[in-house]
Amino acid sequence: MVSDGMGPASLSLTRTFRQYVEELDYSDILNLDKHFIGASRTRSSDSPITDSAAGATAFSCGKKSYNNAVGVLPDHNACGTILESAKLHGMMTGLVVTTRITDATPAAFSSHANYRWEEDLIAQHQLGYYPLGRMVDLIIGGGRCHFLPKFVPGGCRNDDHDLVKKAQKSGWNYVDNKQDFDKLNQGKNVTLPLLALLADGDIPFDLDRDDKVYPSLAETAQTAIRALEEATKDSEHGFFLLIEGSRIDHAGHQNDPSAQVREVLAYDAAFKAAIDFAESSDVETIVISTSDHETGGLATAKQLTPEYPEYIWYPEALANASHSGEFLSLKLKNVVDYSEDKLTKFITEEILENGLGVYDYSDEEISRLIENKNNAQDVINNIVSVRSQTGWSTHGHSAVDVNIYGYSKKNTDAHISLMESLVGNHENIEIGKFMESWLELDLDAVSKKLNSESDKEITEFGQSWTGSMDAESLRELRHDNYHI
Amino acid sequence: MVSDGMGPASLSLTRTFRQYVEELDYSDILNLDKHFIGASRTRSSDSPITDSAAGATAFSCGKKSYNNAVGVLPDHNACGTILESAKLHGMMTGLVVTTRITDATPAAFSSHANYRWEEDLIAQHQLGYYPLGRMVDLIIGGGRCHFLPKFVPGGCRNDDHDLVKKAQKSGWNYVDNKQDFDKLNQGKNVTLPLLALLADGDIPFDLDRDDKVYPSLAETAQTAIRALEEATKDSEHGFFLLIEGSRIDHAGHQNDPSAQVREVLAYDAAFKAAIDFAESSDVETIVISTSDHETGGLATAKQLTPEYPEYIWYPEALANASHSGEFLSLKLKNVVDYSEDKLTKFITEEILENGLGVYDYSDEEISRLIENKNNAQDVINNIVSVRSQTGWSTHGHSAVDVNIYGYSKKNTDAHISLMESLVGNHENIEIGKFMESWLELDLDAVSKKLNSESDKEITEFGQSWTGSMDAESLRELRHDNYHI
Repeated sequence: MVSDGMGPASLSLTRTFRQYVEELDYSDILNLDKHFIGASRTRSSDSPITDSAAGATAFSCGKKSYNNAVGVLPDHNACGTILESAKLHGMMTGLVVTTRITDATPAAFSSHANYRWEEDLIAQHQLGYYPLGRMVDLIIGGGRCHFLPKFVPGGCRNDDHDLVKKAQKSGWNYVDNKQDFDKLNQGKNVTLPLLALLADGDIPFDLDRDDKVYPSLAETAQTAIRALEEATKDSEHGFFLLIEGSRIDHAGHQNDPSAQVREVLAYDAAFKAAIDFAESSDVETIVISTSDHETGGLATAKQLTPEYPEYIWYPEALANASHSGEFLSLKLKNVVDYSEDKLTKFITEEILENGLGVYDYSDEEISRLIENKNNAQDVINNIVSVRSQTGWSTHGHSAVDVNIYGYSKKNTDAHISLMESLVGNHENIEIGKFMESWLELDLDAVSKKLNSESDKEITEFGQSWTGSMDAESLRELRHDNYHI
Repeated sequence: MVSDGMGPASLSLTRTFRQYVEELDYSDILNLDKHFIGASRTRSSDSPITDSAAGATAFSCGKKSYNNAVGVLPDHNACGTILESAKLHGMMTGLVVTTRITDATPAAFSSHANYRWEEDLIAQHQLGYYPLGRMVDLIIGGGRCHFLPKFVPGGCRNDDHDLVKKAQKSGWNYVDNKQDFDKLNQGKNVTLPLLALLADGDIPFDLDRDDKVYPSLAETAQTAIRALEEATKDSEHGFFLLIEGSRIDHAGHQNDPSAQVREVLAYDAAFKAAIDFAESSDVETIVISTSDHETGGLATAKQLTPEYPEYIWYPEALANASHSGEFLSLKLKNVVDYSEDKLTKFITEEILENGLGVYDYSDEEISRLIENKNNAQDVINNIVSVRSQTGWSTHGHSAVDVNIYGYSKKNTDAHISLMESLVGNHENIEIGKFMESWLELDLDAVSKKLNSESDKEITEFGQSWTGSMDAESLRELRHDNYHI
């Protein structure tokens, strides 16, 4: 399990928020807290601050690579991943995320690209259109966009391929909405391979999520676990499943503490689902949860004036918000042709009072919202951060070590092995190496297979790991995209 | 061992700084990193963000108390401490710090005060002038000030007591300078009880420290360990020693990343000294290291412009600085009657170039230094933070969980007990409770003794735990003091 962008401060923020909202004692802690075992050092091969691609490649391949690398090494050779090797050893495999399934973390387990924004290429690999063939049995997440050509509604591929149709023809069961997802009956009614793409891009933040339109991460995780458990019940080999709380990272990039605590709680619930399975299963199971990096330079304290600060922060300011800055800024952008009076009324009533639960707004705050009407996300999130006294240092990532959580049934070989390998402070690649060793996989063999077979497939775009986009388009994409 | 104010980000900051300066591989980690076992939740009884007093009381008494509480509980009864109970059980005891010995952390182990700024009272307790008598055998640190009356140079007591003279008369060996400290011969030449007060207030930051005038924390720690080892060599009971890297916290309060990394390295060296002793000693020994809280809301990333930030920070900016902001701002304050030209020359040459190793300063930075000539600490530290891209959210504390480090020889009962008790995520009071349980102490018995005997000593100021200062003076002190 990967809690993308969740650093140590996210935990104390969320724990205290939950205690406040549910009126719990300070000793009432998160599910994650109960299984804390270590910390991971996150630097990539080319920077003290990693991105999600190099971070995920460290887990999937057990090797350091450069920022932007998806399942490839600094020499641009592909590295065999845990998921691929697990599949080749007879295990079933799955990916469950809340962002685009073609985004860096799931991509690094199931595809190979020199550059993370080659999401058209990544989608192809994920469905099996690459040297190894189909390696993934179950996909649940967002990101339909890179599976459909531009001329199809919601599609954004730069070529003409309708990968959804192609997948359906070759046997994938396809789900693209909540009604059909519900028919999977919590995993009891799944036929593999399953391709569930539940949003064009991201599944909304848990704070904004409409239960009728999108399942929670705990629901998608449970569905995946149940389906893979069922599919491997007569197998010797079990399953490998990646579950990502993808959008903790987005809340960090956006500096939105209200969205962040709900994303962490949603992840914590999914983590509990995984632990519950591992506890009840007769099959020896290890649950590992960690982050690729911290996002936002989050601090559970923010000094508001030059006066020496009191030692306090205010969870109630996060509890009062009923929507994220992302949601509310879009809502504000969408009102058009309002007079200044009408716009001010809309801002005070719909954005500040109903949206954020803020009643002590200043004229200056209203003016700033009017000025930034078409992109008020930062202004809105700052209003909440100031009131909760939550600090942020960047819209990007930071280099702080991130937590490792782990579970296996006590007094089993798996538990001993887990504790010996991952208690303490570790380089992120050690997590990948531990999975390889405990599952008795051979990632180098997969790398060899990948690189020798890719030689045969060199196209006009170079190696298989280079997609079809030109450098200029890739640069533009990077600049357009806030979530890296 | 207490690393005051050291949060998770201090570790990645310092680790990468050291790798940069010493040209080491990314796998070359700190001594602390090798003994990481868990994390501590730090909230106090009255706030999600603790101060050092409540933080240290959690360790010393194993109980939550309010911010400002020194060895007392929310009901203002004293709580017996690990150090007191250890002494009453026949162990030898010591305190080694780099700030005032009367500051919150050492105070919470060796005194009882309703309010941490009652440092005159705290000094009395530490020498044994309170119901339990002398509980401390060895003191090394700064803070002579509260042991001497105002009319003595360097003294600041509000009464007429010369506690140094009083202590010497009752048998304490007193050391107040580096030459005499060196005669202790790394602990081989110590007669207990030892009172070594090596500065009026703080011992300078390690970055500013003159080797000829002040020992390092590793040296004072080694001296204390050797002296206590020697003094207990024929005893059944061993010793309890608190070693504090006190001023990691001050570098955090001041938002000074250059000073911070050197303080963490100095602490890491002292930690190694403790581990080396525990490894070599035949006596079963446990070393525990943790922090009371994080200070500064430190992030190893700082966004400088509205442009989306690169994923990078620059350790070279910290390596280039040869002095702290504290030191350089005092140096700037001390030049008087300079013409503007001469002041500008002094600022560029002495502060920016020689002091910080900064040559790409802007006119605006020079103007800000001139404007803030008498208190330029924040301006100076910001110049370094911007160049290193180090983020800070506050001059106060934050609520993030802090790391726990632990060591005991493998395959011993102590090791098993330590791992069972402190691996994972724990409430800070569990650290105190573990020490009580492993040392087979009885803190409640000490509390009973303290509170019943204190009844007999009610003075015009109330209970023994209330000092002589009026509320107004205490408030002023709090506002004058940046290090809490």
